[in-house]
Amino acid sequence: MIFLKNDYGLGAHPRILKALEDANSSYFPGYGLDPVCEEAASLLRGRVECEEADVHFLTGGTQTNLTALSAFLRPHHAVLAARTAHIYTHETGSIEACGHKVIPLPSEDGKLTPLQIEEAVLSHTDEHMVKPRLVYLSNTTELGSVYSRDELEAVRAVCEKYSLYLYLDGARLGCALIADGQNLTLADLSHLTDAFSIGGTKNGALFGEALVITNDRLKEDFRFHMKQKGAMLAKGWLLGLQFRELFKDDLYFELARHANEMARLLSGALMGGGYEFLLPPASNQLFVRLPNMLIEHLRPSVAFEPWDAPGDRASVIRLVTSWGTTEEDIMEFMKLL
Amino acid sequence: MIFLKNDYGLGAHPRILKALEDANSSYFPGYGLDPVCEEAASLLRGRVECEEADVHFLTGGTQTNLTALSAFLRPHHAVLAARTAHIYTHETGSIEACGHKVIPLPSEDGKLTPLQIEEAVLSHTDEHMVKPRLVYLSNTTELGSVYSRDELEAVRAVCEKYSLYLYLDGARLGCALIADGQNLTLADLSHLTDAFSIGGTKNGALFGEALVITNDRLKEDFRFHMKQKGAMLAKGWLLGLQFRELFKDDLYFELARHANEMARLLSGALMGGGYEFLLPPASNQLFVRLPNMLIEHLRPSVAFEPWDAPGDRASVIRLVTSWGTTEEDIMEFMKLL
Amino acid sequence: MIFLKNDYGLGAHPRILKALEDANSSYFPGYGLDPVCEEAASLLRGRVECEEADVHFLTGGTQTNLTALSAFLRPHHAVLAARTAHIYTHETGSIEACGHKVIPLPSEDGKLTPLQIEEAVLSHTDEHMVKPRLVYLSNTTELGSVYSRDELEAVRAVCEKYSLYLYLDGARLGCALIADGQNLTLADLSHLTDAFSIGGTKNGALFGEALVITNDRLKEDFRFHMKQKGAMLAKGWLLGLQFRELFKDDLYFELARHANEMARLLSGALMGGGYEFLLPPASNQLFVRLPNMLIEHLRPSVAFEPWDAPGDRASVIRLVTSWGTTEEDIMEFMKLL
Amino acid sequence: MIFLKNDYGLGAHPRILKALEDANSSYFPGYGLDPVCEEAASLLRGRVECEEADVHFLTGGTQTNLTALSAFLRPHHAVLAARTAHIYTHETGSIEACGHKVIPLPSEDGKLTPLQIEEAVLSHTDEHMVKPRLVYLSNTTELGSVYSRDELEAVRAVCEKYSLYLYLDGARLGCALIADGQNLTLADLSHLTDAFSIGGTKNGALFGEALVITNDRLKEDFRFHMKQKGAMLAKGWLLGLQFRELFKDDLYFELARHANEMARLLSGALMGGGYEFLLPPASNQLFVRLPNMLIEHLRPSVAFEPWDAPGDRASVIRLVTSWGTTEEDIMEFMKLL
Repeated sequence: MIFLKNDYGLGAHPRILKALEDANSSYFPGYGLDPVCEEAASLLRGRVECEEADVHFLTGGTQTNLTALSAFLRPHHAVLAARTAHIYTHETGSIEACGHKVIPLPSEDGKLTPLQIEEAVLSHTDEHMVKPRLVYLSNTTELGSVYSRDELEAVRAVCEKYSLYLYLDGARLGCALIADGQNLTLADLSHLTDAFSIGGTKNGALFGEALVITNDRLKEDFRFHMKQKGAMLAKGWLLGLQFRELFKDDLYFELARHANEMARLLSGALMGGGYEFLLPPASNQLFVRLPNMLIEHLRPSVAFEPWDAPGDRASVIRLVTSWGTTEEDIMEFMKLL
Repeated sequence: MIFLKNDYGLGAHPRILKALEDANSSYFPGYGLDPVCEEAASLLRGRVECEEADVHFLTGGTQTNLTALSAFLRPHHAVLAARTAHIYTHETGSIEACGHKVIPLPSEDGKLTPLQIEEAVLSHTDEHMVKPRLVYLSNTTELGSVYSRDELEAVRAVCEKYSLYLYLDGARLGCALIADGQNLTLADLSHLTDAFSIGGTKNGALFGEALVITNDRLKEDFRFHMKQKGAMLAKGWLLGLQFRELFKDDLYFELARHANEMARLLSGALMGGGYEFLLPPASNQLFVRLPNMLIEHLRPSVAFEPWDAPGDRASVIRLVTSWGTTEEDIMEFMKLL
Repeated sequence: MIFLKNDYGLGAHPRILKALEDANSSYFPGYGLDPVCEEAASLLRGRVECEEADVHFLTGGTQTNLTALSAFLRPHHAVLAARTAHIYTHETGSIEACGHKVIPLPSEDGKLTPLQIEEAVLSHTDEHMVKPRLVYLSNTTELGSVYSRDELEAVRAVCEKYSLYLYLDGARLGCALIADGQNLTLADLSHLTDAFSIGGTKNGALFGEALVITNDRLKEDFRFHMKQKGAMLAKGWLLGLQFRELFKDDLYFELARHANEMARLLSGALMGGGYEFLLPPASNQLFVRLPNMLIEHLRPSVAFEPWDAPGDRASVIRLVTSWGTTEEDIMEFMKLL
Repeated sequence: MIFLKNDYGLGAHPRILKALEDANSSYFPGYGLDPVCEEAASLLRGRVECEEADVHFLTGGTQTNLTALSAFLRPHHAVLAARTAHIYTHETGSIEACGHKVIPLPSEDGKLTPLQIEEAVLSHTDEHMVKPRLVYLSNTTELGSVYSRDELEAVRAVCEKYSLYLYLDGARLGCALIADGQNLTLADLSHLTDAFSIGGTKNGALFGEALVITNDRLKEDFRFHMKQKGAMLAKGWLLGLQFRELFKDDLYFELARHANEMARLLSGALMGGGYEFLLPPASNQLFVRLPNMLIEHLRPSVAFEPWDAPGDRASVIRLVTSWGTTEEDIMEFMKLL
């Protein structure tokens, strides 16, 4: 079976498992207050080039988003997000469950533009409406698209104009930063956002997301919120350990690069076959329209996700590569094509 | 000044004030557990033709909506509502503040159709998404349109098909039931909805909404929720008194009929002038497009609300009549036209 | 029937009803943004001697407490309150429903001491515990006791030492400030607390509480919170009107003085009869232990509340006077004794 | 360093790490819908002798408690718990953050009695108070004490009498069931409680708690709540894998037995030394009063927790054993004594 269903189907990169074995028989202080977490945080502060950043480690993406946003906002504050945003569509209303409205803005490619952020702010005029206070972006987006540095700077500018926090969900940040033709860096993010996450789950770790908070106003008492939301792992060193391994050299980006390369091979083959993409391939998620007969032909040998409702003759499917995808996987897929 | 800005600008109908004076020097049990509230509830149970209905009195519309919906739903449940719904646009995220996502459905006329409810339900397929559990309608809608009995029965049918509660916000229920060509009754509502409110604030009372709960599953412990949300008035008899006065004869509907008649006069005059309406006039709220010069001409003498952003030459304004609008008001307005 | 059951059994003082009649046929802007509310707020700013204070009018006590506290606190913040505090015992967990723990501190007389506040703060040492951030006092307390200026200054000092907000629930503030031997003033409160309420419901109004916010950090966007919690009355002028009437001269304090005097007559008679009080009488609530036989003798002619579980021979009952209690009521009660 | 500070300082039992290595290179379905989780759930259903039980796997204890309790309760429902209960003292108000009051009941030994549960229920008489709806027990308790089957049956009886759910936090359930002289079994728990957790974090796993729901009314849509609270791990098979390993034979109980035996050796030595315990040693947590000089003597070589404020001459410390504690650790500790 060629697994192209998602990027969290596989365990951890062998180096991470090895690190875990090495550490397993030592005693550590609990709840993330251990030397391994401190070392990992320090590495990340260096990488994002912000020595004052607060770095926290949480177990998953939904948890990271809800803990951060509920800590950052007052009860009447709302979040602006693309209609396709993960927090709007696939986190079971977790932000609303914390009391905050998420205002969906239309988006064809999963990205937000400064103009629509501005319009949304200006349409909220008084106390009978919620007050937009935070912009949520994901990078890569849920549709595989990627923000350029210019785009992000423009979003930042409108956020500053209207006193909006900018939060970036980096569940797939590796694949975004390493994407073809991109020049956005971790260091840029620490200047352009108020807080952002760096996803481990989909990029080589067993589980875990790092949350980087650079805005001083958002740092205070964050560990209280983690504990209150059930987001503080007793053996927190498990998280620090994985991020230390991913960032002590370039492993994190190597894995992302590999995922993107496998996607490029795949999209090349599909383009060669004349198939049409929902959006131009940019990272490790591909959304391609295939004839239904071809989809049926692939089904026994390839794990993938259908996307939207099936069409009469052709349907869109999602193909996702990861650090674990092999060239053999792609070759075999090409043969099936 | 001709007041056509809204239907809550004036105090109470004189009969209500008279009832208040008569009762003011008596002692009553607190928190709505008094004979006046019981009498009013009993009158309403008769009017809605449901002796088993629970009737509660609350002070305002937002309060009624949030207390009811948060009492009826579990944390993962979501509400389906028109994008124009009051709870979605003008209650400062009060439903989300209670933890529930409100899913906005497109609507040109403020109403929901069975088809779009069905589509919304079917697009929520698993536990990564919220679970639609309640449909919120308003009647009249925020755009002044009105549900027919047929339309409401069709909505009810889809609610039953998908185990959705049907809740109707009746802040302007009088004007809806009395609207031209309508045959919907209070008794219909007690069968077609699981709970609905009967608005007093905009129909002759100083303040107050009656909430009628007919679905047994939603009745339990409702007074706990009222108290917890700050929605239980110490001198609850003030609310019962007003509803007793409104419903001991036909005062409630007389006042609504008057408001609608004044709107009919007004819309007749505007149509006569060739002005275009955003929606066909149906109740006491009119949305009409007028030349900007005319709007400026009216401004010193008429209180009204602008609607949406102003246009280059013409703009939409909202004109609202109420039980307190006089024929003289309309005549004077006509002269200005 | 001699009504000594509570202080919200009666309607409004005649002057308030008169003011209501006078205003009833005028149109007012909605939601408290009207000249009457502004005038009332201005009067109150003068009375509390703080021109920068924000003054809001809400309909009830629970509503005022929950709207204020949820607006003031972040999710991990907790409230320190006496175990007898209204928010802890009789508001159906409304503060917890907004997400905040209320930490009950033992109290015999309904008051908190600086020492126990300090101990509570010091026992909350890290992020596994909530963070105490606000002290809730009521004055008069739920047991009828009253804070002296010295006591309040001492509480204030410990609040400043530990960065705690001080909030005072003044549902019965009139009776507290007017109590025998007290020298606390409204102006003191605006300096000693961060926010406090002035209760109308129990002191001459039909309903209504004024919330005075003096700490700048707590003022921002408060009207958003009011709307979100269903605490913004459409005809907000009804509230302003009542407070304007109560404070345009000394009506508010006259009514409180009368209630306290009636209580003094009553407690004098009871002391004369040798009956024992749970706490020394200080305001308009009396908690007295009476022989069960006497209680049965009173029951047909006097409305009162039992307090705690009945004893074998004697039981404690609560007797409450109000602005509406007459000397005749007291005389008749004495005869029954 | 002899580590007696807590029971979550060490990684996983080697067999668990081995299982992880074996599974690491396979692809699994996400979010706990994989064959490993199903196998683990099935094993547990057998062990608790309830084939209809729902079994879910979550990452930590606070997360499990808050997800379960918020899913089980309506907004006005409160939780009864010992004042020493983890949810009351050390989970940063997570239950209140979900909207529910936790009512603390006095307890010397960490346990609740049926009588105090009954008294608490009876003291909540109307809608001005929260409604107790769920009893929270922990076993072992936070003080190391253990419920007997008789005690638990008595609590169950009072819960049934007053329609209270019974929830048992089994963060240290292994040590409780295996404790000397106990005859309580997993199967008993599935009959005596409505839901209970089985802790992995403190008993051999890297992390993870299994939640067993036996009451049908509490099962519906539980996975929605998990997702909404950020408690659904993307690679959920990591949790199933650990519980499968712990329960495919008796590993879970062997590890608990070892922890208890180490505690027995330790308490024997301390008793031999004439030292006094706060409570009779019953499981793997010991609370012993030692002379301050002895404490200082131990400090450089032993990791432990101080308990409460230090005394003048002697102070209480907490000593905790785990599956990883060795006889050599205990021997060395004895020497230090």
